[in-house]
Formats: sequence, C-alpha cells, structure tokens
Amino acid sequence: MTTTAATEGQYPTASSYYKSGGIDVWTLFNQAAAKAKAVNLGQGFMNFESPEFIKKASQKCVADDACNQYSPPRGRPNVLNAIAKRYSRILDRQLDPASEIVVTAGANEAIYAIFCAFLEAGSNDEVILMEPAFDQYTPNIKMAGGKPVYIPLRPVPGSEDASGIVSSKDWTLDMAELEAKISEKTKIIVLNTPHNPIGKVFTKDELEAISNLAKKYNLLVISDEVYENLCFDPQTPHIPIATLPGMWERTLSVYSAGKLFGVTGWRVGWLVGPKELVSPSLTAHTRIVFTTNSPLQEAASIALEEADSNGFVKDQKIVYHKCRSKLMKAFDDVGLPYIQPDGAYFLLVNASKVEIPDDFEFPDEIAVRGKSDMLTYFFTTHIGVSGIPPTEFYSPENAHIAENYIRFAFCKTDDILDEAAKRLQAVKKYVRQQ
Amino acid sequence: MTTTAATEGQYPTASSYYKSGGIDVWTLFNQAAAKAKAVNLGQGFMNFESPEFIKKASQKCVADDACNQYSPPRGRPNVLNAIAKRYSRILDRQLDPASEIVVTAGANEAIYAIFCAFLEAGSNDEVILMEPAFDQYTPNIKMAGGKPVYIPLRPVPGSEDASGIVSSKDWTLDMAELEAKISEKTKIIVLNTPHNPIGKVFTKDELEAISNLAKKYNLLVISDEVYENLCFDPQTPHIPIATLPGMWERTLSVYSAGKLFGVTGWRVGWLVGPKELVSPSLTAHTRIVFTTNSPLQEAASIALEEADSNGFVKDQKIVYHKCRSKLMKAFDDVGLPYIQPDGAYFLLVNASKVEIPDDFEFPDEIAVRGKSDMLTYFFTTHIGVSGIPPTEFYSPENAHIAENYIRFAFCKTDDILDEAAKRLQAVKKYVRQQ
Repeated sequence: MTTTAATEGQYPTASSYYKSGGIDVWTLFNQAAAKAKAVNLGQGFMNFESPEFIKKASQKCVADDACNQYSPPRGRPNVLNAIAKRYSRILDRQLDPASEIVVTAGANEAIYAIFCAFLEAGSNDEVILMEPAFDQYTPNIKMAGGKPVYIPLRPVPGSEDASGIVSSKDWTLDMAELEAKISEKTKIIVLNTPHNPIGKVFTKDELEAISNLAKKYNLLVISDEVYENLCFDPQTPHIPIATLPGMWERTLSVYSAGKLFGVTGWRVGWLVGPKELVSPSLTAHTRIVFTTNSPLQEAASIALEEADSNGFVKDQKIVYHKCRSKLMKAFDDVGLPYIQPDGAYFLLVNASKVEIPDDFEFPDEIAVRGKSDMLTYFFTTHIGVSGIPPTEFYSPENAHIAENYIRFAFCKTDDILDEAAKRLQAVKKYVRQQ
Repeated sequence: MTTTAATEGQYPTASSYYKSGGIDVWTLFNQAAAKAKAVNLGQGFMNFESPEFIKKASQKCVADDACNQYSPPRGRPNVLNAIAKRYSRILDRQLDPASEIVVTAGANEAIYAIFCAFLEAGSNDEVILMEPAFDQYTPNIKMAGGKPVYIPLRPVPGSEDASGIVSSKDWTLDMAELEAKISEKTKIIVLNTPHNPIGKVFTKDELEAISNLAKKYNLLVISDEVYENLCFDPQTPHIPIATLPGMWERTLSVYSAGKLFGVTGWRVGWLVGPKELVSPSLTAHTRIVFTTNSPLQEAASIALEEADSNGFVKDQKIVYHKCRSKLMKAFDDVGLPYIQPDGAYFLLVNASKVEIPDDFEFPDEIAVRGKSDMLTYFFTTHIGVSGIPPTEFYSPENAHIAENYIRFAFCKTDDILDEAAKRLQAVKKYVRQQ
C-alpha cells in the first residue's frame, strides 16, 4: 500500500464520533465553579460525611488480601447474596444470585453494557428516551450502534401555582405520542424513576401505560432506579416497573451503591433481571471492564446487610427531604419558581424571570451553548452558586423546553445550602417583577 | 406498527454478537479448578499478602470523605501527578498530568476506550494483533466496530534445547509478514511487552522494526505494558516503544496499578500519551464508565509515591523471579519443556508428550474446544493443577500453534507453587519417553 504518514499529519486521527472531543458539561461547569469559588450545587455528589458503618466496611475490605484480587465478572458471592436479599423484597420475587444479578462499575456501566448487549451494531436499532434524559444515555446508545428516539415530558398547561411552581407529577408523558414513536426498529425504552433531573416519581398508572406498550411491541425496558430510596411524597412511592404483570420478563432494573449509600466515588452498581436478559449483559460487562473493583463491592455487601437493620436507608430519606425543603425555601425567598420534585435530589429552577445585564460577558464556549448554559454560567460566576444546564439532558430539537431552567443538587450539608441561600439573595435584583 | 410480542417469544433478544452468550474461559476453568480443588495457577491473580504500605494507603483513602465521591473523569490530581512523576522517568520526557494521562477502570477499560476512540464504527477499520493475544483484545475491537487482523509469533525452527525448552526470545515476528498484513484499512497495532502469555520482552531491534512500519503507514500503537516491572533477564530490559524516535506522537501506553502493586481487584489503570491521542480516549472513557473508583485511585497515588523510595518495585521483581525458577523446576522434574519467559508471570508449558488415557472423560463443553482445553482440563481435574488453555489467545486459524500448550501463572506464594510441584509428580506416568 502507499505511504500515508506524510499526508495525514503527525498524529493518528480519532474516529469521527470522538474527533470533536469537546468538554463534557460536568467538567465545564465544575471548572467554572472552582474558578469562581462558587457553592457547587452542580454535580450530584454528596458532601456529607460518609456514614461510619460504611467507612468501617470499606476499611475492613481493603485490608483483606482476598478482597484485593479479581472478583468473578458477575460479582463476589457475598454482594450477590446481599443484593438478592434486598431486591427480592423490593422486586417481590425470589432472586437467584447466581443468574439474575450482575455487579457493575457503577450504574452507568450497567446501562452501557445493556445497550451493547441488546442493540445490533450497524442496524440503527432504536431506543426511546424520555427527555430530559440523563446525558450519558445518548452517547452510550450511539457507541453501541443504536439510535436514540426522543419523547419529551411536558408540563400540563396551567398546572403551575400562583408563584409559578409546578409539581413534578404534572410533567407527564403523552402515551399516544409515545406509541407513535415506536417503530419496527424500536428495541428498548429507557425509564428513569425517580427521575433525574425532574424529580418525577412515575405513578402506577403511568407505569402501566408504559408496560402495555412494552408488552405490545416486545420491547426491553431499562429501568434506571438509582434514586430508588429518595421519594418524598408518600402518595407516590417508588414502584419498580419489573413488579408489574408480565414485566419481569422484559425489564433490566439498574441500581447504584454510590447513590444508595452516598458514596458516588465507589463506582459500584448492579443490574437485576431474568437470566435471559442478564446473561448477554454479563457478557458485555465482562468485555467492557472484565469485573468491578473488589474491595468496594465487598464493602457494599456489608453495607447492604447492615443498612437493613440500622435504619440508615430510612434516615437518609429524611435527611434529603430536609435538604429539599431548604433549597426550595431559598428560591421561594428570591421569587424564583421551580419544579417541586417528589424524588431524587435535584431542583429544576425556572430562571425565566432573571434578567442578565446586557454588558455581562460570556466566554465563547458558553455563549454557543444557549440560554440555559448562559443562565447557569451567570449563577455560577456572578451569584456564586453553580448548577448544571438541563439542556444537556435534551436533544437539540427539544432543548428549548428547558432553556429557562437550571438544575441544582440538594445532596449537600446544611452549611452549604445555607451559604447558597445567602448568596442567592444577590439574584433578587435581577428578578423581573411581574 | 404490527404487534410482534406474540411471534418473537417471551424475552427481548440480545444482539447477534451477544446472543450466544457462552462462558468465558476464565469462568470455565476457575469453576473447574474450584470443583476439582485444584491448585489454581490459571488466572493471573496474586495470592501474596498485599503489601502493608499499600493496605495502609487504601485504608486511609476509604476513610476520607472526599475520596468517596466522584473523581474527575481524567483522574484525581494526586494520582495524575504521581503517574506523571513515575512515567516522566520511564518514558524519558516531562509529562503533563493535565493532558497526557487518563486514569481508567483497569488497563482493560483503557484499551477498550482507545479502540472506541480510534476505530470508525461500521467501517471495518483494522487492528493488527500479534498472537497469542490477550483474549479481551478481539471482542473489544469488534465492539468498537473494528476488525482484528492476526499475525502469529512463531518459534525459530531448531531453537529448542535438548530438553525441548525454548527461550521466549526465540518466539519472533516476521516483519515482512507484518508489513504484508497492513492495508489501507489498518489503523492500530497492538503491542504487548512484556508479553502475556509468552513472557517475551521485545528487544530494541524488534521495537524499531515495528516502529518503522507504524511511522511508514501512520498507525497508532497501543502498547500494553502492564507487566512493565517484571523483566528477569538484564539483557532484555523493558523498553517502552513510545521512547523510540518519532513514536511518542503515535503511541498510547497502558499500565496497571493492579499488576504493579499486586492488587488485581483494584481495577485502576492508566493510559499515557500525547494530548492529541489522550483527548479522544478520555472522551470515550468518560462515556464508558464516567470515572474510575475514587478511593483506590487515590490510594494508588500514595503507593506510587512510596514505592519510589521503599524498594517495593525492585523487590517485587526478585520475588517473581524466584517464583519463575520454582515453577520451571517443577516442570523440569517431570520432563515437560516450556517457553522460558523473560518477563510477565506466566509459563507456557508444552504438554505434547502427555498421553491422556483413552478412557478419560471430558465434558462436552471442553471437548468441543480442542486439544489445549483438553490438556488443561486433564491437568486441572486429574493432576490437580489448573491452568488456562492459550488457544483462547488465538484466532481459529492460528490456534493450532498453541494446541500443545498450557498457561500456568507463577504469581503465587511458595506453598502454592510447592504444592503444585508435588502434585505435578503425578503427571510423570503420562509423559511419553522419547
């Protein structure tokens, strides 16, 4: 063959998908927050102290020689058993730890492995995403050779109260629109309940309507339930879609030790489902990372066992509920409405009334990204409270739905939330009075 | 659209690549070894006690609240700095921790991320693998949409000594054959030195020949150097190909904390290269796992700093050297030759002289896999010492090259290796005398 080095430049080139490179929204706004010394309510990591019993568990495991070597790709026996115990209760069926569970390198890798296992590369198999959709879903689908198809959640017209606050219950899916999105190519629907970033907890009626379509068209449902434990309204408890009639056979439910125990840096998650769906997912997982880190998955087994009896899981919910109230009040105080979340730990604030001064300067990489990014940047650098623009959770055609919103995380200690509230007072003078 | 649930069966079906599922060789032989209570020299995990300074480092990190939350996708500042320090020395250039390194969920995920970043999905970009090739490379290339092209290392005819022992130096690559494998579609060559499972440490001459082709045809080189520290012959020190003239610009070098510190369960690795090659790899890594587990990458930063001064890295090499001698002697004693490894921690034993009794029964899943699997199974269940069939590291067309070999790992304590030697005595009566 001919020599190509001279004509193609000094470095081998990345594939077209990766060539642009580009900075991800988390890195972009974490850097901006750090530079501005903003109170960081952007990324959803906890700044609570990690619970003592969890730290003890991990200290024990890292000191154990056997826990420092490879685990079986599926997971260590102790954690598979502990997961089977907890989720047999939650999913209301006896789980087989040897065939119905895989421990993954975080919930993210679990979902990516499922896409790899079920999407036919090069055939443009379709996956339905409800927008806003966690920003990793779209690239993960494309990497696995699939095609995302979007359907937005929309607020019921007129559902806002006098202050403009809308319940997350009133952001709903049009089921006829959902059915219309299903084609011969559709293979998967991704459900996320409790929902990031809206905080919606899907009701039984809504889940039934989705289930009926999944069964009618033989679709797999990936149910991202990493916020399983954070539901604040007893009227809308978390319901795993896998517990609905006929749905176990077509659902892979995904969970996260990082979210459940407030240790997002562990990168330990798990997927649960029938053997027929778990087996190909395990094969993909084995090729992607081979296996999940051993000491922290072993620690998760202890944490799962102990959290059962020490009340931690219940207490967590109370703590996050208080955090939610604190952050909602901070925005009430400055006259900015929001979507009141029933679950998860995010508040989508409607900043349409904020008037940014004409002479406020945006760096180019922010200005090109649109209004939500500009609002978020203004809060980050000028008000000193950083968030994440939820337009990152949308396809370009639907991003306008969220252009006035900023996502703030409330999985933070009182001092952080108090400081945020204090700084937010400065936004008052930019809020248009109606 | 029409309803397909009734005709397509109860479960959504996996993609064709994953449908067969099938059990991976590690799981297959780990299970057989456990069932037979064999001395497990199969998978390359250490059964040494993890070093105290490393356990202390990880205990400190898991107790640190900040270390239990998300890390930046690229890696935590401390570990990026520690990696930059060690590999600036090894790669003989000043590394920029902010742009030339990514911390990954093991070396496996690093290599997979690079394939994703550089192979154009659906275009059958080609990757050249030298056989035997670590068994994850092929599936990882296919998942990223590429096509593996194989070239086997072959023993120089007549290079064995009177006992049939061959030096790993004498398993060589035919450079004309390598050049003939390069097509317009070729994008990447994967190099693995020290080599698993042959134990070959590529010489400067060999690396130069590979480099010349990489430069001539503008190829990326992925240099899998996870056994960087385990070289037993001072005549063939480990040379990173990135240090050769003109190669930094086209090489991503991959390393492993698990291998370097004897903690394979940590799942912490790193890739090093110029910013232009690291950036797209980071983007892929960010989408695959988002980020690597925080406490153990922070612990790796402490381990890297301390190992610099406490002599651990040098001591390790001596320990593994002794293990190698012990295992080679065990096979000398029963009259079975092998490839004498200059590096890594595997011994490829030539079992062609072993005559398995005609009435020995193999389970179907072993019998279908061929001679190397049957030999390995015989050693595992009848002799009580388990290995891995190296044919797993070959494409079907070249697997015959390794059909008489079994791979045994010697990263094991003296008592394990002594027990293996004792049990191996039982093979004597099956060894054909010549």
